[in-house]
Amino acid sequence: MKSYLVLLSCASLTFILLSMQSCQPKGASAAVSSEAAKAVYVPPGKYDEYYDFVSGGFNGQLSVYGLPSGRLLKILPVFSVFPENGYGYSEETKAMLNSSHGFVPWDDLHHVSLSTTNGEHDGRWVFTNGVNTPRIARLDLANFKTMEIIELPNSAGNHSSPYITENTEYVVGSTRFSVPIGDKVDVPINTYKQNFKGTVSFVKVDPNSGRMNIAFQILTPGIDFDLARGGKNKSHDWFFFSCYNSERANTLLEVNASAKDKDFIMAINWKKAEEYAKAGKGKNWPVSYAHNIYDEKTHTATSTMIKEVLVLDPKDCPDMVYFMPCPKSPHGCDVDPSGEYIVGSGKLAAAIPVFSFTKMEQAIAAKNFEGTFEGIPVLKYDAVLHGEVQKPGLGPLHTEFDEKGNAYTSMFVSSEIVKWRVKDLKILDRVPTYYSIGHLSVMGGPTKKPYGKYMVAYNKITKDRYLPTGPELAQSAQLYDISGDKMKLLLDFPTVAEPHYAEALPASLIVKKNVKIYKIEENAHPYATKGEGLAKVTRNGNIVHVYMTAIRSHLTPDNIEGVKVGDSVYFHLTNLEQDWDVPHGFAIKHANNAEILIMPGETQTLAFKPDRPGIYPFYCTDFCSALHQEMQGYLRVSPVGSNVPLAFSTGKKNPSDSAAASGAKPTDTGAKPSR
Amino acid sequence: MKSYLVLLSCASLTFILLSMQSCQPKGASAAVSSEAAKAVYVPPGKYDEYYDFVSGGFNGQLSVYGLPSGRLLKILPVFSVFPENGYGYSEETKAMLNSSHGFVPWDDLHHVSLSTTNGEHDGRWVFTNGVNTPRIARLDLANFKTMEIIELPNSAGNHSSPYITENTEYVVGSTRFSVPIGDKVDVPINTYKQNFKGTVSFVKVDPNSGRMNIAFQILTPGIDFDLARGGKNKSHDWFFFSCYNSERANTLLEVNASAKDKDFIMAINWKKAEEYAKAGKGKNWPVSYAHNIYDEKTHTATSTMIKEVLVLDPKDCPDMVYFMPCPKSPHGCDVDPSGEYIVGSGKLAAAIPVFSFTKMEQAIAAKNFEGTFEGIPVLKYDAVLHGEVQKPGLGPLHTEFDEKGNAYTSMFVSSEIVKWRVKDLKILDRVPTYYSIGHLSVMGGPTKKPYGKYMVAYNKITKDRYLPTGPELAQSAQLYDISGDKMKLLLDFPTVAEPHYAEALPASLIVKKNVKIYKIEENAHPYATKGEGLAKVTRNGNIVHVYMTAIRSHLTPDNIEGVKVGDSVYFHLTNLEQDWDVPHGFAIKHANNAEILIMPGETQTLAFKPDRPGIYPFYCTDFCSALHQEMQGYLRVSPVGSNVPLAFSTGKKNPSDSAAASGAKPTDTGAKPSR
Repeated sequence: MKSYLVLLSCASLTFILLSMQSCQPKGASAAVSSEAAKAVYVPPGKYDEYYDFVSGGFNGQLSVYGLPSGRLLKILPVFSVFPENGYGYSEETKAMLNSSHGFVPWDDLHHVSLSTTNGEHDGRWVFTNGVNTPRIARLDLANFKTMEIIELPNSAGNHSSPYITENTEYVVGSTRFSVPIGDKVDVPINTYKQNFKGTVSFVKVDPNSGRMNIAFQILTPGIDFDLARGGKNKSHDWFFFSCYNSERANTLLEVNASAKDKDFIMAINWKKAEEYAKAGKGKNWPVSYAHNIYDEKTHTATSTMIKEVLVLDPKDCPDMVYFMPCPKSPHGCDVDPSGEYIVGSGKLAAAIPVFSFTKMEQAIAAKNFEGTFEGIPVLKYDAVLHGEVQKPGLGPLHTEFDEKGNAYTSMFVSSEIVKWRVKDLKILDRVPTYYSIGHLSVMGGPTKKPYGKYMVAYNKITKDRYLPTGPELAQSAQLYDISGDKMKLLLDFPTVAEPHYAEALPASLIVKKNVKIYKIEENAHPYATKGEGLAKVTRNGNIVHVYMTAIRSHLTPDNIEGVKVGDSVYFHLTNLEQDWDVPHGFAIKHANNAEILIMPGETQTLAFKPDRPGIYPFYCTDFCSALHQEMQGYLRVSPVGSNVPLAFSTGKKNPSDSAAASGAKPTDTGAKPSR
Repeated sequence: MKSYLVLLSCASLTFILLSMQSCQPKGASAAVSSEAAKAVYVPPGKYDEYYDFVSGGFNGQLSVYGLPSGRLLKILPVFSVFPENGYGYSEETKAMLNSSHGFVPWDDLHHVSLSTTNGEHDGRWVFTNGVNTPRIARLDLANFKTMEIIELPNSAGNHSSPYITENTEYVVGSTRFSVPIGDKVDVPINTYKQNFKGTVSFVKVDPNSGRMNIAFQILTPGIDFDLARGGKNKSHDWFFFSCYNSERANTLLEVNASAKDKDFIMAINWKKAEEYAKAGKGKNWPVSYAHNIYDEKTHTATSTMIKEVLVLDPKDCPDMVYFMPCPKSPHGCDVDPSGEYIVGSGKLAAAIPVFSFTKMEQAIAAKNFEGTFEGIPVLKYDAVLHGEVQKPGLGPLHTEFDEKGNAYTSMFVSSEIVKWRVKDLKILDRVPTYYSIGHLSVMGGPTKKPYGKYMVAYNKITKDRYLPTGPELAQSAQLYDISGDKMKLLLDFPTVAEPHYAEALPASLIVKKNVKIYKIEENAHPYATKGEGLAKVTRNGNIVHVYMTAIRSHLTPDNIEGVKVGDSVYFHLTNLEQDWDVPHGFAIKHANNAEILIMPGETQTLAFKPDRPGIYPFYCTDFCSALHQEMQGYLRVSPVGSNVPLAFSTGKKNPSDSAAASGAKPTDTGAKPSR
């Protein structure tokens, strides 16, 4: 039983840490080099050097910034609805946000992993994780779209995710919040130690399509997994996870999960796990989880509920999982470019331990254990330690690496970044951050070949750094030049929502393959309208389908009659443009829906259920041309039982009069007599 | 009747205009001054000089940028749900998006007006308009929150909005899409000329509270209103509106609304309208529209449905409304700082007409009419014209003014800005924009005392200006130095969604009154929990209220049991912090809901309806402290009919054991025995 004294001293430590969290390091206001302005200025029309993919944290979105300018290029919706372009609102995209508990409009997107081949960025995909509804998403770097979301069963708080293996063989997700899983889930919370379990999911990534599927899950004790990294080179077969709450507290974790001197880095031999899975050592558990896939040809997502998952229990799989003791609630768990060193950043620790993979292998071979934790061997700290970085600062969180053998660790509490040499653990430089840095990102930092040059700090507190915006302030990033011996602050730029973590790659890796339009001839959407002459309105019971086209500067049809209260109207809009950067938008008055934004060659559908008679204007919502303002039309809705015939037209005097003279070009107005 | 030839020639013109829309002006790639980098660089920790309030167009949000850096300081949700902070998802904010047709999660936010006193910015409020569901919103510049949204009945496409009078006496909204209004709304679309009407709503603004109410609406012919501006000084009593589609076409407006050589600027004497309203010349129409108000003390919005509006018909109100002919589908309608000149920008016109207010008054007095339009007098063009700016460029859209008597007009089709002198209409300078500029914004440009110095172009097409992001690209702004004789391009910065229009003011006008926290003692939320000792969970039938507190780094209570499937659980979270920039977030696994983000001293509520038994983790979603990661808890949900008692605690071994020893500070854990 923990003594009251220990708890009190932890609480005091917490108090001290909190009091210090927003203190500004001394001398911090030193003048920034006048060169900084030039260094970050990207002249009008010139491209940034790096794409920076920044997690949006509690906005559920991924942000794309340009570096060194710090300009926000685009917000990409992933786990949250996005009224701006209809993501989660169009009929085609709703399925992307389906889960085992139905439609979820939001998530907490924490980390990003850019796909790698042989440990280097290959510019194919970016993976992100949803924490609250445990999910992993894959976006394509050619079209910048969320292409796939897979839910993780037997999990809660998918925080330690979506880290990848060296060739993107797997992307992982592990539980931050252990929960009871399996048959018996309605249990008292204070039976945590008996009933709550963690899992690590290994999600296989198809090397050609990127398609994900859960290969297996590994059952773990009910501790909290925080961050993770896959091995490299010699440690290729291994994956490392930081763990806190090895106390397995279920209440007031602030105190109760900060009691022990050491928690763990968990090391998993995933190659061995693969073998066990193949050898039938796992059990198929009945579960239910959603696998949502966006089809680029039909422009439509589907959601499939999967009912089984393979679970490996370390009890049945020896030599698959080990624990390395790591001081006080580690956050970061980072593997250096060589794959030899694993850095654990204990956020309440006074030193940064660096573990040696070679020593770990030796210790395992020698069974140099200090005991077991829930049946899993715990290696001796001294046996696996390369060494400790002494007095690095307060609250070490996360470490990345440059191409010269140096490491950079963020210090949340003392608001600074510390640069140290991996080989001899010597501190080389330190620089303040404003304020309370969480993650940092060195260009290429998590890969086998870091690019170096720039580093970005992602800070939690901004307070007095920008013009104030009421009680709710932006969080912030700071760009540093790390090309020389000393780190130099170049730029502060505010970010959207919470810039939890980010990964950047050279623009050259993806610019050339950028998708500009969807080819209309490849559009396989079942309701696509590939020419104005094909536009039509059909009725099937009380379902009305509008096959509509958009091209500068009109919608076809733009006069529709014969819809009645009680009908469900589906506007299937095909953008006939085939030029880059000519989207059209579509909205109709009184829809309890967002707009849809349709890219050239694409088809998207907006559902509308009119609730009373009247004339409902619709229009293009994206300023597309000099006559954009004229790109509008009208839907007439009549009462239930009305005998107004279904009719539609463009450029006719009367929607139901198909023979009337047309003001439009006769060949392409596409007005057809109603059925 | 319009001849086919005329229509054809319009179509050809359109084709030419479209073909030219993205052409890059020659010599445009000229080197930007090396001084530009320094001019836009705001060193880390320094403030921008101007707040720039930029409409988000089809994202329904308002963006706050800093100038000259072009940094996005914050996105403020107005007409669209915002999963990031729970706007539209929390129980408190849902009512803000209510309308006469129920909850609408999205709108198209086009324009902004910063409140003025005596024609100068007073730094109190910013007004914005929703186009699709006709609405006007008011945000407070002390807390940067949407405080009020009022729907406009008898309207559709509230585009010509939210322009204000000189002392913010009124904010206006007028119909872009005329529709049938009143009793008879189910009519054939081709009876447009007989049955479709426009309206202009004059919304009174309370000078102390800012509270809005619709004073009266003015009935107009069924034409499309585009933009507007209130008068100044001598024209103080007047309001001016650009009108297109005076052809009153109801289909293929691209062609059919571009037929006439002239449309109109409509001039309304609002002082006279006020008198008519007072004198009982209006009629009260039965309508239904929502008035949504956010209460800063209860942190809660209410929506009231209003059932009547006063309508003035110009037929009954002589000398209230006049038309001035204006060439070809005017977009911009802008009043210079003196109030004497009204600039109409006909987007298909070859010249920019500048009208004289003095001449207009004289022409009215002399009844110098060329006829009437739907009973409203049309003044003679030559009688009201100050003069025309000749050969300004192609596609003039919108004009603003500096402090030196100059005007700046955006040219959509020829992608440029033209600077000209108001007095003699002489063109002084022109500068390219990249590409297809819509609105522009001169600092203080719409006021009586422009600040000048900077101008921003808001462009529709970006194409090759930034690193590509797939088919969907950011739209863009460009910052120009206008302090000298020649305009100088300084910076390109991408924007979120559609930067339709913007207005900027000096930071000094609002920085000092910025609200940093909500004082806990002023929190009048009915479910506020003003101390951990007051935290509790109560049940009323199948409604469970959780009175929860958040303070670094725990939630109280953090263990809750006794909730059953079928219950509706309301988490009322009070953030007990009283320091700036310490929000807490809250989310619970499997909620079909967004998170809530709670500012210091605030209470917000997340509703959750668990659908099956289990343990549901909840946690703080905003990285608040070194022990943020430990800020979590558990809700146990039991099956229907379960006899698990309602219990809650923090730091106890057992939620239902209130007498157990506590690991937390005994005075503030607030655990209470369950009822």
